[in-house]
Amino acid sequence: MTGELDPRSAWTASRCSIARTLEVVGARSTFLIMREAFYGTTRFDDFVERAGLSESVTAGRLKELVAEGLLEREDYREPGQRTRRRYRLTAKGADLVPTLVSFMQWGDRWLADDGGAVKLQHRDCGEPVGVELRCAAGHPVGADELELAVPKRSRRRTRTA
Amino acid sequence: MTGELDPRSAWTASRCSIARTLEVVGARSTFLIMREAFYGTTRFDDFVERAGLSESVTAGRLKELVAEGLLEREDYREPGQRTRRRYRLTAKGADLVPTLVSFMQWGDRWLADDGGAVKLQHRDCGEPVGVELRCAAGHPVGADELELAVPKRSRRRTRTA
Repeated sequence: MTGELDPRSAWTASRCSIARTLEVVGARSTFLIMREAFYGTTRFDDFVERAGLSESVTAGRLKELVAEGLLEREDYREPGQRTRRRYRLTAKGADLVPTLVSFMQWGDRWLADDGGAVKLQHRDCGEPVGVELRCAAGHPVGADELELAVPKRSRRRTRTA
Repeated sequence: MTGELDPRSAWTASRCSIARTLEVVGARSTFLIMREAFYGTTRFDDFVERAGLSESVTAGRLKELVAEGLLEREDYREPGQRTRRRYRLTAKGADLVPTLVSFMQWGDRWLADDGGAVKLQHRDCGEPVGVELRCAAGHPVGADELELAVPKRSRRRTRTA
């Protein structure tokens, strides 16, 4: 990593968005719940069964995810049935889909001799889908072509990042 | 999520690459170590200080990451100094950079009133860099345009994913 934050000794990552994100979703069980929500799971019992977590862990994670605004809880009732709750991804939650796809892609590449059990494809053209780094000018960007910079409005206030 | 894995009740995510990935990197402290490696940190003392973790947690995580092949450990010696160890990202570790960038991007959007403390930019053109979903045909793909599919070679063996 090069750029204006070199040398690293001049700053630390105290206002870092990576760390902030990990405060919200940095637990394995949270990602498993989010994976299921992404796959379309909506009901408590299905989250428990499909994420392979205990009822108490599932309940705790769902509550946190609702409190953080990644899932929304909704009561609904089908004719002749009792009222049920369902959970759905909010826009904030759905914006973690690239993260989930990056996990799938990395696991397929590095951990799956079988190439992975499911594939994501583009609904419109059927081609496989992955995540990639791109800049606003549209160039694909390699991990070795990244530079760190401090936005101008932050620069005078602090050298911590 | 639509596609050939609808209805979800016909399968569970038992060979899932997301779950496999989370077995390796599903702890917050692991991601903080990986973030620092990505920023260019190489020495044990710097990982401790910059990731804000205890020495024992840092030592444990570094050991795991070396064992999993995401970091490699190397002894080196500068003239007149004692031998030191340094840690560097392997190709497998560097392939998690899109995941780290997705965390930064999500945190900047949803958790940072200030827009985030650091920015990633393309070394060659200076434009900001983010992660995006794209299919192999080059189309940008929205989270609502994803379909799940089972690769042909997996199809007969099992319906679990």
